[in-house]
Parts: sequence; C-alpha cells; structure tokens
Amino acid sequence: MKAISLIDKKTLGLITYQYSPLLPEDGVEIDIVLSGICGTDLAVLAGREEGLPGIIRGHEAVGVVVNVGNAVTGLQPGMRVVIDPNEYCGRCAACRAGRTHLCTGGHNGGLDIVGVNKHGMFVERFITRMPFVYPLPDAMSWETAVLIEPVACILNNIDHAEIQAGERVLVLGSGPMSLVAQLLLRVMGVKTLATDLNPNRIQFGRSLGLDVLHADELRSRLQQTPVDVVIDTVGNQLDVAMSTVRRGGRVVLFGFDGNYTYTLPVKYVLVNAIRLIGAGEYNQHFPRALQMASMIPALGELVTHRYTLDECAEAFDHLLNDPCSNIIKCVFTPNAKYL
Amino acid sequence: MKAISLIDKKTLGLITYQYSPLLPEDGVEIDIVLSGICGTDLAVLAGREEGLPGIIRGHEAVGVVVNVGNAVTGLQPGMRVVIDPNEYCGRCAACRAGRTHLCTGGHNGGLDIVGVNKHGMFVERFITRMPFVYPLPDAMSWETAVLIEPVACILNNIDHAEIQAGERVLVLGSGPMSLVAQLLLRVMGVKTLATDLNPNRIQFGRSLGLDVLHADELRSRLQQTPVDVVIDTVGNQLDVAMSTVRRGGRVVLFGFDGNYTYTLPVKYVLVNAIRLIGAGEYNQHFPRALQMASMIPALGELVTHRYTLDECAEAFDHLLNDPCSNIIKCVFTPNAKYL
Amino acid sequence: MKAISLIDKKTLGLITYQYSPLLPEDGVEIDIVLSGICGTDLAVLAGREEGLPGIIRGHEAVGVVVNVGNAVTGLQPGMRVVIDPNEYCGRCAACRAGRTHLCTGGHNGGLDIVGVNKHGMFVERFITRMPFVYPLPDAMSWETAVLIEPVACILNNIDHAEIQAGERVLVLGSGPMSLVAQLLLRVMGVKTLATDLNPNRIQFGRSLGLDVLHADELRSRLQQTPVDVVIDTVGNQLDVAMSTVRRGGRVVLFGFDGNYTYTLPVKYVLVNAIRLIGAGEYNQHFPRALQMASMIPALGELVTHRYTLDECAEAFDHLLNDPCSNIIKCVFTPNAKYL
Amino acid sequence: MKAISLIDKKTLGLITYQYSPLLPEDGVEIDIVLSGICGTDLAVLAGREEGLPGIIRGHEAVGVVVNVGNAVTGLQPGMRVVIDPNEYCGRCAACRAGRTHLCTGGHNGGLDIVGVNKHGMFVERFITRMPFVYPLPDAMSWETAVLIEPVACILNNIDHAEIQAGERVLVLGSGPMSLVAQLLLRVMGVKTLATDLNPNRIQFGRSLGLDVLHADELRSRLQQTPVDVVIDTVGNQLDVAMSTVRRGGRVVLFGFDGNYTYTLPVKYVLVNAIRLIGAGEYNQHFPRALQMASMIPALGELVTHRYTLDECAEAFDHLLNDPCSNIIKCVFTPNAKYL
Repeated sequence: MKAISLIDKKTLGLITYQYSPLLPEDGVEIDIVLSGICGTDLAVLAGREEGLPGIIRGHEAVGVVVNVGNAVTGLQPGMRVVIDPNEYCGRCAACRAGRTHLCTGGHNGGLDIVGVNKHGMFVERFITRMPFVYPLPDAMSWETAVLIEPVACILNNIDHAEIQAGERVLVLGSGPMSLVAQLLLRVMGVKTLATDLNPNRIQFGRSLGLDVLHADELRSRLQQTPVDVVIDTVGNQLDVAMSTVRRGGRVVLFGFDGNYTYTLPVKYVLVNAIRLIGAGEYNQHFPRALQMASMIPALGELVTHRYTLDECAEAFDHLLNDPCSNIIKCVFTPNAKYL
Repeated sequence: MKAISLIDKKTLGLITYQYSPLLPEDGVEIDIVLSGICGTDLAVLAGREEGLPGIIRGHEAVGVVVNVGNAVTGLQPGMRVVIDPNEYCGRCAACRAGRTHLCTGGHNGGLDIVGVNKHGMFVERFITRMPFVYPLPDAMSWETAVLIEPVACILNNIDHAEIQAGERVLVLGSGPMSLVAQLLLRVMGVKTLATDLNPNRIQFGRSLGLDVLHADELRSRLQQTPVDVVIDTVGNQLDVAMSTVRRGGRVVLFGFDGNYTYTLPVKYVLVNAIRLIGAGEYNQHFPRALQMASMIPALGELVTHRYTLDECAEAFDHLLNDPCSNIIKCVFTPNAKYL
Repeated sequence: MKAISLIDKKTLGLITYQYSPLLPEDGVEIDIVLSGICGTDLAVLAGREEGLPGIIRGHEAVGVVVNVGNAVTGLQPGMRVVIDPNEYCGRCAACRAGRTHLCTGGHNGGLDIVGVNKHGMFVERFITRMPFVYPLPDAMSWETAVLIEPVACILNNIDHAEIQAGERVLVLGSGPMSLVAQLLLRVMGVKTLATDLNPNRIQFGRSLGLDVLHADELRSRLQQTPVDVVIDTVGNQLDVAMSTVRRGGRVVLFGFDGNYTYTLPVKYVLVNAIRLIGAGEYNQHFPRALQMASMIPALGELVTHRYTLDECAEAFDHLLNDPCSNIIKCVFTPNAKYL
Repeated sequence: MKAISLIDKKTLGLITYQYSPLLPEDGVEIDIVLSGICGTDLAVLAGREEGLPGIIRGHEAVGVVVNVGNAVTGLQPGMRVVIDPNEYCGRCAACRAGRTHLCTGGHNGGLDIVGVNKHGMFVERFITRMPFVYPLPDAMSWETAVLIEPVACILNNIDHAEIQAGERVLVLGSGPMSLVAQLLLRVMGVKTLATDLNPNRIQFGRSLGLDVLHADELRSRLQQTPVDVVIDTVGNQLDVAMSTVRRGGRVVLFGFDGNYTYTLPVKYVLVNAIRLIGAGEYNQHFPRALQMASMIPALGELVTHRYTLDECAEAFDHLLNDPCSNIIKCVFTPNAKYL
C-alpha cells in the first residue's frame, strides 16, 4: 500500500509497503478518506522541528471502518469515523490520574502519537484500537471532521487559559490553527481579533466573517484597550502579546519558532498578574471536540486544497514555497472513492 | 507623632509629623502595635525597587482601635485588629467585576496600597476605613496576626497555581515569605521542600519542622522526581524551577531581581504543558488569610526581632547588612504599651 | 412624581409622591426609560411570593443620567445607562470575601435590592450610587439593555452549574427568563432544548430560532438520551428534571412554586452523581452581563409590550389574566421622550 | 480457596471455590492481606440495599503481589499493593471524556466494581489488571493502606463540594466514613465538627483529637453560626443539614437511608444559593487518595477489629448487633502470614 513517510530528516516522500492486516481484539481497520497536513509536518520539512526518520506521518484523519476486532463494540464496517492520534496507555500513573496527555506508557516513555512517534495516517488503510475511534454524525462533512483533532488541540488551550464567554481574545497569526481557534472561540461567545502579515490570509479570515487585521493596524485598533487573552500562534510574538494583554490576563504559547529568544519580563509578569500558558497535548478533549465541530459548519471551509498521496511532492511544495497563495488547510485523499 | 518615611529614594528615616485625627464617617483610628518590615521595603532601600519619596512606609500591621466614625459597625475602641493595606475603591470596572487587585480607582489610577503609594503603618496611630479592618480572634498572638497580610499574599499565589492537597511544592529561597508559604502549604496538606544558601535560614526552617535544604543538595534529593509546583521566592531561579517542575506543572514567579534575565524556553514550556504564574496583589483574600493564620500558631515564631520606631536605623542596618544572622521577620512596635 | 408601589400585599398601583433630589457625593440621578416587569413582581401580585407593602417595585431598568454627585467619575448627564439593583454594601464579611450576593450589610441585614426591599425603578426618576450604574454601548437598543439584569441572573446560574460549550441543556418552561437563558446559552455554544405548554410561547421561542417543544413531546424527542443540565424555570418540574438529566449532570432550581412539594430521591441523587443547584442572587455578574447582552441582539425582541406608568393596571391585568396571548416581556416607559 | 459470598440476598457466608489462576497479559495475582468491610456490605445484610446473590463481596483491600502477566510493568511478586475496585473500561464515551466513574462499559452496562457487581476481595487470592494496582510506600501500614479506597471516596465528595482550606465543615454521623472524612479534611486545613448519638463513637473520634459532639449539643455549639459545608453520612439528616449550612453553602448527600423521605425546600435552596451534592463513585481519585493517606498516619487507628475469613459470621454479628461497642472499621485477614 501507499503511504507518505519521513524518508530522511527533511524529506516526506511516497513509499509503498506491505500492509499486514493483523487486527487485535479491540482493533479497528479504517480506509483513510481525508488526512490533514499539520504545521508540525511542515516544521519537520523546514528543519524547525525534529521528526523520526522512517515514520509514516499524518495525525489528523477521518475514514470509513472496513473491519473490527472481536471485542469491538459500537463500531462496524461502513461507519464514517474520526481517529484520535493520541494513543494514551491508560495504565501509567499519569493516565490513571486523569492526565492522559502526560502519558508515560508509550514506546518512548511518553505519549504514543500516530504520525509523530509511530506510524500515522498518510496512508490508504490504517489500524488503530477502539478507544481512539469516534463515529461521525451524518450531517458532518468530511472537511469539518478532519479538523476535529485541531479543535481538540485548541480546546485544550482554551481550557488552560480559562477563556470565558464575553472575553476578548487576540490571536496572533492567522494560519490554519489560528482560524480554527477563531471559529471555535466565536461559537463559544468569545470576541476574537486576529492579525497576520499575509494579505491572502487576512482576506481568507475576513471571508469567514472573522475580524482579521494586518499586524501593523493592531495598535490603532486596540487603542490602548488591552485584551483578556493573547494566543501566539506564530511563536515569536511574545513582546506583542505582553504589550497587549490586560493586567490579570493570560498569554498562551501556542506556536513556536526555534530561532526566537524572548527575555521574560519577570517583574512585569508578577506585578501585572499575568499567566503564561503552555498547554501541551490535549487531554481527553476528543469527545468535546467532536461535539463542538458539529456546531461550526464553517470549519470545513478551511480545507482549501486536496491532493492524492501520489501528489505529495506537489502538496508540500505548495505549502512550503507558495506562502502568498490562498492555501489554508491541505489534506490528502488516500481513498477518493468515498468522497 | 512619629513615623518612618521614605525620606529620599533610598533612605527610610524617622520623622515626626502633625497628626490630624480627621475621621471619616466610616473611618477607624488605630494605635499600631506591630508593623512588619517587608522585603519590598528593603528592596527600595537597596535600590532594587522604586519607592515614592515622602511616603510613610509600612503595609503589614496590627493594632488596637481607639476611635470609630459614626457609620462604622462591628468595630469599637479597644478591639485588636489587623489592617488590610490594599484599599480597593469598590467602584471601578475591575472592582465591580470582582477583581479588586486590579483596581483602577486609586490615586494613581491603580490600587491604593498604604505604605506603598499612600501613607502607611510605620506610625504610632493610623486612620483607615471600616472595610479594611478585621477584628482578631482572642487566641491569636500579635506576632501571628502581623503575618496575616503575607498569608493573604501567599494564598493568592496558591490559588493562581491551583495547588491542591497531596501535591509536592518546591519553594526556592527560605526567607520570611517562603517560610510563610511553607507553613501555610503544610497546614493545607501540601508537601513542601525548600532551599536556601544561608545556613541560618536553613537551620531556622528546620527548627519549625520544615524540610529545608542547602540549594546544592536539591538535585540529589529530588533524584529526578520532578515536583508539581515551584515557587521562586528569590527571583532569579527560573532555570532551577524549569528543570525541577514536572510536565503539566506550574512555576510561580514570586520574587524578582532587577538584574536577572531569563530567556523563556518557549518550546519546552508548551511541549511540557507548563504554566508560569504571575499572581499580582491578592484579591479579597484577607478574610481567608485571617482564617488560615488562626490555624498556624507557628507563624508567630517568624517574628524574630522587634524595634521601636526610634530604632529604625538599627533595624534596617540589621536587615540589610547582617544576612548571616538569624533574623527572619522584623517588626516595629510603635505602641509597646499594648504588648 | 409618579411611581408604581406595592399598595398592599397584593396590589401594585400608581402613586404620586414628593421627589426629593438629594444627591449623595457618589450619587447618580437617572430618568428611567424602560423598567421591566419581572416574574417576581407578578408572583407578589398572585400571592405566590411576599412583597413589602409601601415599596416602589421595579428592579430591571435603563435610563438617562440627568445629574451626578461631586465624587462621581465616568458618568455624566445625557449618558444612557443600565442600573444594577443589587446594592451590596462592600463592607460586610461576605462582600469582603467576594460574595456580594450574600451581603449582610443592607437595611434588613441582607442584600439591599431596589424594587424589592427598598424603593425601586417603576418611577420617572431614580437616584442610585455610582457603583451600580453602567454606561450602555451606543449600538445597544434600550430593549436589549433592559434585559441585562435578567442576563446577570442567568449567568450566575450558568456559572454555578458549570455549563460549558458543547453541552446540552434542557430548559423547562419558556417564559421570559427561560428565553433569556436559551438565547444566552446559544451564544455560548451550548445546545438548548426547551418546553412549554402554551402554544404562543412555543411559537414565540421558535420564531427566535430556538428549539422549543410542547412538554408532551419531550420524551419522544430525548429518546432516552439524557441531557447534561436541566434548568427548571417553572418551579414544579423536578420530577421531569431528575428523569431527563444524565448521570453526573446538574439540575438548576430556578423557578419556584409555593404549592409544590418534591420528595428528594436521596439515593438516586448520590448514586448518579447529580447536583441540585440553588444559585441565589448574582454576584458581580453585571459587567459580564452587559458584555454578553451586547452579543445577543435578539434579546431586545423579548420586549413585546410597553406601557406608561399610568397604564399599570392594564399591564398587570394583561400579564396575569391573559396567559394565552403572546406577551413575553412587558416594560414600563416612564419617560417616553427618550425613546 | 475460601471466600465470603452473598449466598442469598441477606446472607454473607463463607464459601470455598475452585480457584483458576488464569492470568491475562496485564493481569496481577495478589494475596489479599486486609480486606475491609464497608457500610454498603452491612446495608445489604440489613436489607437496606440490594446485593447480587452469588457475588463474592469486598471492595477495599490490600495485599502482596504473587504473580504478574507478561505485559505488566512496574509491579512484581512480593510488592505490597492496594487495589482499586472500580474497574472502568477506558473505552466507553464516559471514560474517554475523563468521567471514568460514569463508565458504561462494564458487564451490566455500568461501572464494574469488584465486590459489588463482580467477584471481590473477601478472598485469599485475587486477580485484577495492572491499571487497578498501586504499590504501597514502605512506610505505610497495612491498616492505613486498607483505607485508601474510602479516602478516594471522600476526596471525590470533597472535590464536588469544592471544600477549601479554612472552611468549616459539619459531618453528621461519626461512623468509619465520617472519621475518614474528618481526618482527611483536618490534614487539608479544613475545620471539622461532627456529631453522633453513640457515646462510643463520640469518644473514639475525640481520642483521635477530632471535634465530635453529641447531636443534641449541636445547636448550642453552632450558636447560630452556620457552617460552609454539611456532609450527611447518616442519610436522614437533611433537615439538620439545611438548618446549619450557611447561605451559599453546600450539602453533601453521602449516606442514605431507604426509609427516609425529605421534602426539598425548593425556594429556600434557591434563595439561599445552596447546592445539594451527589458525588457518585470516585473518578481517577485513587492516586491522590494514596498520596493523601500517606499523610494521615492516624487513619490506621480506625481499624479496630480483625477477623479471619472463617470468622465471618462473628464479624458481621458484631458489626450489625453490637452498635454500642467500640467497633469502627473491621477487616478480614485472609492471609495472616503477611501481617
């Protein structure tokens, strides 16, 4: 079968491999329909983050069940499903204390994440276990569903930052994750404002009715009224964050940029009662993410580009080298027949 | 009357002034019995923090009511009381939203704090308003009571860091505020471990039954078992904090050191789900602080030295220049007759 | 001036009285523009709740500032404002602990509530104090603004019940407060379902895009899928609530009915981890309520009927005796010139 | 092997059975050392609660590992352990949302609880799975350890009631669970007061330094100062609870009594902002319970009586028919050789 693997540290390429459909008792075999390319995949390609060579990438995917193990309940062939890539063990100390995101029971002594530290979902067919598979509501499009994993990720950050309805949140950067955050926050009764430098992204956000500005316009818009929360999705905007967050506010470290250094203004932070939030992986947020995604039909519009697995070179080239284009979320379509 | 005022930017000295006992309707006139010297007072003297020249300092005090305004209820002459120095206005947007610590209604557009930005309690007699005065339980010693304000401060940080019973907290530094934190956390069912470099302080903490180590012993003691929360009371120990806090843990920025720079390890923070907490001033924590102080008789033992107002030069000299001595908390006794 | 007062225990009638415009230092004098009739006003008239004879009722109002005291900042004549009727004292133990709704500093040893235990806002002109007055955004209609107090009330219940985005809430009854709750929950990303018996109310709710059913249809709609939270706005529906709430869910006691008795199924409650919530008065929710109301333009549509103070007999007659009509929220217009 | 089984609906008796040591991959085989008798076991015997005939009871136990399956890590023969009886499935919707106490994946469509709905730990040897086994600290006595499960249960109720340090909690009844609650709350900085009618129990509580009163003395002790939280461990004291809890307080429904009926004072509850809490089974509280138990050496003193499995008739007779004796917690010792 075909898959897209991290061939060497900086190359994601098409491979074919011998598929062994060995299904555990609680296993679920799935034809992948859409498999989203995440910023972390690109960060690996760009050398900003390290990836494990030999690993099939892909951790955001939806598909159709083709087979289930004997012990599986609630799932059957033909069902449309979304897959949680974060395979917490359920047995380590962290999992048993309800902190599955801090799982230490995986292959490397941490959390097993498909597409990151074990084989993932840039493939035609995938086998996982029942706890990580969720049926999709009939009314949910494939495009919306493929964004459930990003929604879980954002929900986790929202929870950590204790963002509540009525607050005003500034999202720095308007890439795919920022747009997911903005759409999600909007449906939760939170007022968002976002920035970007790329006119296409600003335009795209606005086409969804979102309030997106050029970064240069931020000061004049805020007019010295600070915001409750700032989410830095760019990874190098903490100075902007710190100068726009209100006293008692929260700054969420979401993106990161390896070349960035930021000197923490310790006194400013403590005098002004600011919290800096690193939220890590999501923790049992998948069910809620599925629920929330069903309330945000616009999510599906973020999927602007589709590629077959064979077209992977083209896909990554587009994503990495054509920043001025209107590409937002790009997905692979390993089994176009279901679309 | 006598008082200790910030004569110029770096000198706290005895002054005498004309006392005008003008009592507002809800005013309370108090003979100050103990008035604690805080690390921030010393920071001003040492030039590490800025103070307002001309201001009478002193924001931790207890005393005896001598007179009350017509509208005052629940307080009467002769009562032993503790005074909350954080005089929130109760009318600004922040106060009305339950965030009195972010009050913008004070003289400088912020929170009025007696002893910091308006005349404070290094005095013989003090006038404040009823909302800021709390009667003391009969069983509480003056020495314990004078530490209620520091307890409020620590409680606020504990709340922000969401520390819960059963967790393990590392407190970096074992000065007065750290000792208050350790005693408070202990009575809340939290396991503490603290460090210092000063053998006298280590010894003092141990004499209270606290687990205090020399900083050099920390690694071997922790043996790679990280802690749930680190509170840096020193202000320049964030590298230690970050290397000892567990994934999903919290680092509380409590002390600060003007000469310290710390480069925030953004990726480490977000991958490991760490929160950095600046808690600011306490927010309506005074009633709970009084309650908690009544459960910690050992608090009073922190008061190791007493000085009259006339002895202020000696007091500050001792605090600033004799770090090896066994001084912990030093208080003024403006009205020794009540002791 | 004219006002509507509780003449005897069961009669609300027009009175005229001598208005003494004595403005305290922090006083604000306001021409009332809209003053909403609340279910509690009707409950008094119907003898279901006790009222204080002689009291001018009215606790939901908006108006225009006509005069301010010397110490008032941020408010000036001509400003459109909303008034918080819950005049907490800010000085009692409860207030100082951040529980202003449990204030014991009022005239009767509890919370002073204008229109309930002190003179209220069914009047032409009203004097209150600065902390209880909030300017309205230009874009907010009078009709939306007059519902800010009910929004605060509902927010308090939502907070107590810890309702979060993505949950499903059943609201029993679809009167004015239920509709406020449904509109508010909807904008917070919560899925609502409501019932009523009155076809006009069902129809009205549906006209706002809300999911309102006849109570008889509830079972078939739920199809044994319990909800996360039930809010009983009727006051006698706890059996329905208990049979429709999920394990681990919450039941909010919102309405009450003096003739209702409910035997608590103690074992059922504890085995199924159910919480029954009484939320009391709101606590410093007014600023957030103002914020949220600005996000719900549909709120204003709930104001279906307007009466002058002179028409009060007609207004109460309509509300009490014409339940089949399409009346939802009824307001007095003491100063029509501002409309 | 020997075990104690619910022979018919009201008889717990000794049985012998064929033990089949079939160890799953993640199985752990344990010699039970102490196995506590819980109030629910007695409730079944007394006909106050229903039990499943044929089930071996016993859900509070500690023991020594004798064998582990191939996939087990972190556990090995000889280790002293405590067993979590609540075997959540980890795969159902509730478990995946972090609500393991609401698990629907068990044999009866709910949570599998050993000793309640599947064979339990009144046995010589027991097999469970790795996620439900926790090694004991060396310093912890068997007697303290056998109370970890009750501690988890109480912690869950404390969490639901949001009890915080410095609050005052009234515990109605002073049986074993109440004593666990009092000891636990005390170490968390909470002030407790408890009642009972039985002089032996009052005396026993006092011998632990706890503040236990005869129920008749409650009113005079409280002197109209209501408490923050009331926990009814008796199950028929809600009228006392409601009349002693403060406004804004919480009443925890902990015990239950089948013959008790309580008419909920709906208006009183909502006007006074009272919450009634049913907490259900604990949810991933076991790790914290182990942690907390290690801080409460006095816990072990609650174990006042020990019986061999052969002495079960005597044990139950003592517990059920000798209420005036000083029996508190009674345990079976299926393998005395380890003691």
